[in-house]
Amino acid sequence: MRVRVDWRTSASILGTILKILALPIAAVGALAAAYREPLAPFLAPLAITLLAGVALERFDRGDPGVREAFLLVSSAWLAVALVGAVPFVVAGEGTLADPVNALFESMSGITTTGATVIDDYDAHGRGVLMWRQVLQWLGGLGILVLAVGLLSELSISGAQLMETETRTQNVTKLTPRIEGTARLLGGLYVGLTALLTGLLYGLHLVGRAVGSPDLAPEMTLYDAVAHALTTIATAGFSPRAESVGAFSPAVQWLVIAFMFVGATNFVLLYHLTRGETDRFRESEEFRVYLGVVLGGTLIVGAMLVLDGEYAVGEELVRTTLFQVTSIVTTTGYATVDFDLWSAGPRHVLFLGMFVGGMAGSTTCSIKTLRWLVVGKTFHRDLFTAIHPRAIRPVRLSGQTVDEDTVRDIYAYTLVSLVIFGLLTVFVVIDASRAGVEVTEFGAMGAAASTFLNIGPAFGFAGPYGSYEPFPDSTKLVMVVMMWVGRIEIFPVLALLTRAFWRS
Amino acid sequence: MRVRVDWRTSASILGTILKILALPIAAVGALAAAYREPLAPFLAPLAITLLAGVALERFDRGDPGVREAFLLVSSAWLAVALVGAVPFVVAGEGTLADPVNALFESMSGITTTGATVIDDYDAHGRGVLMWRQVLQWLGGLGILVLAVGLLSELSISGAQLMETETRTQNVTKLTPRIEGTARLLGGLYVGLTALLTGLLYGLHLVGRAVGSPDLAPEMTLYDAVAHALTTIATAGFSPRAESVGAFSPAVQWLVIAFMFVGATNFVLLYHLTRGETDRFRESEEFRVYLGVVLGGTLIVGAMLVLDGEYAVGEELVRTTLFQVTSIVTTTGYATVDFDLWSAGPRHVLFLGMFVGGMAGSTTCSIKTLRWLVVGKTFHRDLFTAIHPRAIRPVRLSGQTVDEDTVRDIYAYTLVSLVIFGLLTVFVVIDASRAGVEVTEFGAMGAAASTFLNIGPAFGFAGPYGSYEPFPDSTKLVMVVMMWVGRIEIFPVLALLTRAFWRS
Ligand SMILES: [K+]
Ligand SMILES: [K+]
Repeated sequence: MRVRVDWRTSASILGTILKILALPIAAVGALAAAYREPLAPFLAPLAITLLAGVALERFDRGDPGVREAFLLVSSAWLAVALVGAVPFVVAGEGTLADPVNALFESMSGITTTGATVIDDYDAHGRGVLMWRQVLQWLGGLGILVLAVGLLSELSISGAQLMETETRTQNVTKLTPRIEGTARLLGGLYVGLTALLTGLLYGLHLVGRAVGSPDLAPEMTLYDAVAHALTTIATAGFSPRAESVGAFSPAVQWLVIAFMFVGATNFVLLYHLTRGETDRFRESEEFRVYLGVVLGGTLIVGAMLVLDGEYAVGEELVRTTLFQVTSIVTTTGYATVDFDLWSAGPRHVLFLGMFVGGMAGSTTCSIKTLRWLVVGKTFHRDLFTAIHPRAIRPVRLSGQTVDEDTVRDIYAYTLVSLVIFGLLTVFVVIDASRAGVEVTEFGAMGAAASTFLNIGPAFGFAGPYGSYEPFPDSTKLVMVVMMWVGRIEIFPVLALLTRAFWRS
Repeated sequence: MRVRVDWRTSASILGTILKILALPIAAVGALAAAYREPLAPFLAPLAITLLAGVALERFDRGDPGVREAFLLVSSAWLAVALVGAVPFVVAGEGTLADPVNALFESMSGITTTGATVIDDYDAHGRGVLMWRQVLQWLGGLGILVLAVGLLSELSISGAQLMETETRTQNVTKLTPRIEGTARLLGGLYVGLTALLTGLLYGLHLVGRAVGSPDLAPEMTLYDAVAHALTTIATAGFSPRAESVGAFSPAVQWLVIAFMFVGATNFVLLYHLTRGETDRFRESEEFRVYLGVVLGGTLIVGAMLVLDGEYAVGEELVRTTLFQVTSIVTTTGYATVDFDLWSAGPRHVLFLGMFVGGMAGSTTCSIKTLRWLVVGKTFHRDLFTAIHPRAIRPVRLSGQTVDEDTVRDIYAYTLVSLVIFGLLTVFVVIDASRAGVEVTEFGAMGAAASTFLNIGPAFGFAGPYGSYEPFPDSTKLVMVVMMWVGRIEIFPVLALLTRAFWRS
């Protein structure tokens, strides 16, 4: 066992990541140039990433262990968030010009949260607005690679379902198999993004060709790319103030399907592309995930009909399915201002925030897998309470879940709920101290939505609102919580223990 | 392993419990007679308990196992709540005349919750008001016996700290040691109640004797008994609308001390009465419990001073220490309407609701022991995440906590938080459906306060308010949640599994 954490190795790999980040920055810069917008917002971070990247990469790189991986993951998300804020500050447009707001928006981007501090979309150039979208897409890709390569080790993500090797010692000394899986899933991610872009823009073109003004008149190529990037990443930023509500029903249906896909285990999706449907049929997690989306839609839909908000019909089904799928997959898009709904449907959506999609996807929140294991274990524990001498392992999709994993999942879920509760109380107290009026439900929603990386909340931070009114202190704490939540808590908390730095 | 649950044994023991219950009913009936109040409210339940008790006791009684114990515990608390409601309905006074209200008040009594639906104390006779106090005292005694004899088996309560035998098979086939412990602790409970009664009434008598009108002029013998009963039980009912705020500072200091004692592990208290102070000094749980009370007082006190509510002085210290001790010990008394405080102190009190006092006492909520184990285990898990090959057991007060217990504690804490969350959402939706205006914070407070058996909440159900305005459907669900929460969830949930009834 190494005596100290080898921070040089983490720094060196971080350097490589920053160098790679220069590429999307340059691409968005080129887009800004094409729109004849200022280049400075992108030249600055381009220089930073290249210089810092080359400098950091020069550190000696050894074989990273668990601690080096924790340090890398924590610092990578933080570093990209800092660099990602530079374009907003340099551009100096609207509310994003403020450094705290810029950092909030950037962290919300790279963590695929989708909480925004923009209050006037027209104030921003197309380059800057696309940069938000790209940040989220990169965050989604990052988390997918992490889920395969690291989180299967560091915590419990999809390891069991994903059949990657678990509990090895040098986690980032990627075995060919893990590295291969990461490449395959990354390729699938790119492919799905391209497919959705094509479908969205295709709708637009077909609509124009056949002279149907209702098909997708608003879905320009820019919008198709922008929304494809943040749909597959279950991330939720949109360059439109009305989010996906700005587009036709056909577009909304497409987005529903791809949000659902984005929060599906990518290993299962990969097998599906090869025509292997067995894994889907065997996956208990998929069934629960599907059940939560459909069940939630049914409940919210029934409540909306009782409230007289909608008549039974396509609009009801589409609108309900869209908001429920958006929340459960942690995407955070909206097609209506669900904050105006009555207490019932709003609270069901609030509960939906805690579910999340499947492990091994780009989804955030606690994830269906963990709730499924918690439920099964609790049921098993009731059984063993009745029959103390019985031994009955927890089984998932036919496989035994080992007891350490069960305990880790309990711990993760419990700690998530405790952090959510403390964050809610902090938001209430801090906002009231600063004289910002926030309802308890608004605070609960904002706490859940940032820490669980969903995006919109309730009240002024609702789906058509903005987090801008929160005091800076609240926003900065939310920045930290988005960061901690996205990389699944453990890496950051481990950094705070003494054992991490010396032992 | 028995094939079916032997419900006859549970029914027979329940019969004995009901017969014993006739005694306190008769005693309160005698008190009512002394005050020349109607006797019918007490004759009715007296007849019911004696008849049902004798009838049930005739069932064949075998050796009860875990399932019989679950069934007994669940049905005992429910049966006493039903019988306990009869005096309120028969008396027909004020809001308690309504059957749903009566059941709410009775369940709130026997579960030592202390949430009330009374809105006019003057409407009720002294017998009926004393019956509420006696119900709570009985509930405290019941939980103490349960903590020693059963919960140390069924879940995790104080087993490890209390050094009672654990994981035996026939849990209610009390070993002489467990039965002896139960007797000793029950005796201590009675002794402490008598001591506090004497001290409270003594203050009154001394005050009158020395002609000091401020010492405890209001503390009649009736009030001394009434408040001693619900202080030791950390229960919180009071026959006074102003709760302990109706009495002098001297009385308030005494009550602070005895609330604190009531939520202290009774095994430690027992050793203390024998002059053995080592156990106290070794108990990590006691240190955390004391730290939470003092730390909470410091935080709330500082906030109140900043708010300009109080100047630094005796009144600030007493008032803050009283409300914090009352909430953390789950008693639920008040000396001021803390619902009128600003967001900061109100939310710190709200968080305090989830802590609870020490295992092995009459306290409710999640309890310090569980949070301590959760915290230690989480810290350990961070360590093993960094050093995957290290084996490091969780240690508490020098003893190793086994991993099954750790997992049980995680499960219990997590399930408690999930139930609290779902109950909050239910209260909001149900109240809004019924047109009862309840704030989100009011709903959160009422959900926590009933399920965790504390008593007062915020808003109209605040410390000087009443749960009466809630719709009947909400009240009935709260009745169930008080019941489920007080007997630590597992017994009731186990009854709902198929394995309980046949396997
Ligand atoms: K999101
Ligand atoms: K109580």
